[in-house]
Amino acid sequence: MTGRTARRRVLRISLAGQEGPVGAAQTSARADLLAAEEPLGIRVGGEALTLTMRTPGDDIDLAAGFLVSEGIVRTAADIASISICTGEQCGHSDHDKHSDHDKHSDHDGSADDGAGNIADVELRAGLAVSPALRRNFLTTSACGVCGKASISELSAAPSFDLNADQARVSAAVLAGLPDALREAQRVFSRTGGLHAAGVFRADGELLVIREDVGRHNAVDKVVGWALQAGRLPLSGCVLLVSGRASFELVQKAVLAGIPLLAAISAPSSLAAQLAQDAGLTLVGFLRGSSMNVYTGMQRIATSGEAARREAG
Amino acid sequence: MTGRTARRRVLRISLAGQEGPVGAAQTSARADLLAAEEPLGIRVGGEALTLTMRTPGDDIDLAAGFLVSEGIVRTAADIASISICTGEQCGHSDHDKHSDHDKHSDHDGSADDGAGNIADVELRAGLAVSPALRRNFLTTSACGVCGKASISELSAAPSFDLNADQARVSAAVLAGLPDALREAQRVFSRTGGLHAAGVFRADGELLVIREDVGRHNAVDKVVGWALQAGRLPLSGCVLLVSGRASFELVQKAVLAGIPLLAAISAPSSLAAQLAQDAGLTLVGFLRGSSMNVYTGMQRIATSGEAARREAG
Repeated sequence: MTGRTARRRVLRISLAGQEGPVGAAQTSARADLLAAEEPLGIRVGGEALTLTMRTPGDDIDLAAGFLVSEGIVRTAADIASISICTGEQCGHSDHDKHSDHDKHSDHDGSADDGAGNIADVELRAGLAVSPALRRNFLTTSACGVCGKASISELSAAPSFDLNADQARVSAAVLAGLPDALREAQRVFSRTGGLHAAGVFRADGELLVIREDVGRHNAVDKVVGWALQAGRLPLSGCVLLVSGRASFELVQKAVLAGIPLLAAISAPSSLAAQLAQDAGLTLVGFLRGSSMNVYTGMQRIATSGEAARREAG
Repeated sequence: MTGRTARRRVLRISLAGQEGPVGAAQTSARADLLAAEEPLGIRVGGEALTLTMRTPGDDIDLAAGFLVSEGIVRTAADIASISICTGEQCGHSDHDKHSDHDKHSDHDGSADDGAGNIADVELRAGLAVSPALRRNFLTTSACGVCGKASISELSAAPSFDLNADQARVSAAVLAGLPDALREAQRVFSRTGGLHAAGVFRADGELLVIREDVGRHNAVDKVVGWALQAGRLPLSGCVLLVSGRASFELVQKAVLAGIPLLAAISAPSSLAAQLAQDAGLTLVGFLRGSSMNVYTGMQRIATSGEAARREAG
């Protein structure tokens, strides 16, 4: 019931050119693949913490990454278990089996199918979402800015000091990453409806890619993968996102210890501000052979420099 | 402190072609305009209800539309007042003045500037966000799916019956809307970072366009405009969104009584499902001279039909 895509009948209308005859519209019925979108509830210690509309698949990564992004966990050992369960059977399902199911099913997605998807997280002994943290989480995501004195209070305190990250990435490597991301997206490119987030080494090697209808979920999924692989902080790495860079994506990169965030499209003003405050290198409009560097230029090596170093 | 764009220094790196010499990277500093992103808290009756990261401007529309999208208000008369205030001065500001300020300021956006933006809503006498509604809102946006039996419980009950809307829109008119939206977006196209939502009549006339870094906010802004203009339900109208169509955008269209939602990009599976359940016509991949119709084909007139009617 949790396929990543859903088949659906669609009518394709193609109009003739503006100069063509009036009766030239062509309509054809065909099957179309849509990116699946279903709710996932995340519970910690049996208590509901959040709900997100996501594309099923990599749900354990998503739950783990969400907890990193909210500053609740920092290492894989902070999580005792994450199980994925559906509705009434919560706490009894086998998430490996569920995961296999994910990979093989394309379904038609009736309305009730996904309603019971829940990620049930148990933290390690001694670690809990304190009432204060839980209240703070609710405040920042669904309650209001009342009582907040500054933007910095809206974001969790970073676990890692990005200013200590001496990574350097060449502009030429950066320019090649969008093609690498698109190539790795080939499985889902057929739906045309998914955001992607990829983590690359400074030499351009792709470590992980995850996709989702929500770009924040795609980033949570790669961060959750990294947490469980014992790879946090993602020092020396580049996070590439397929769309724009918002405040929340910069925040997620900072909390995962990623020194460079690159976006295919534009950053927002608050994204640039938070990047500067946190010591993150922020690149936008990474397209073709050019890019804009908003903050942290010291981490980007232009080929001119490389040539000078080689000559020097 | 609440400009819609923010100026920022940026380094533009342009690499030579792949066949070019190693030292050919060109770096130039320039000023760039970013889409502003700042938090807006929405309070109802003095109590915090939600926080959204939005592009400043049309904040009253945004707050009003959000209340429609959540099923809290249905007509302009349901809202006694909405005032925009900042931090400690809440309840005392002049929102017309604020609105003027919006139009004229481009600022550099220091981190603390936007933290105090609050829309303070008073509902009409006798109308309140009941504890049950408030709890339900918190449940669907930040708490969990636990206890929900179906997707339908995730969405507010529609105020308007779309099945009664006999609107028909020609495919040729639809094909022309993306260009009309982009033309109307010209003021902000310079940032490259804003989603747009536009409401059009069936004959293609643009009624309103709003932009935001968040596509859900752009839609809330047009719906809030319609509420205050006494135009709800938006019968016979088309809502065009610049990106993809997700579950939440379909939900907003349904609650505003809009019979046709068109998106430049792909819909999600749940968007198509909800559109079908609600009787909404859903069009995706509206690009060039073609489009995909996922639900509600009866509202779309192809020029072939028109020709037949004219001939008959």
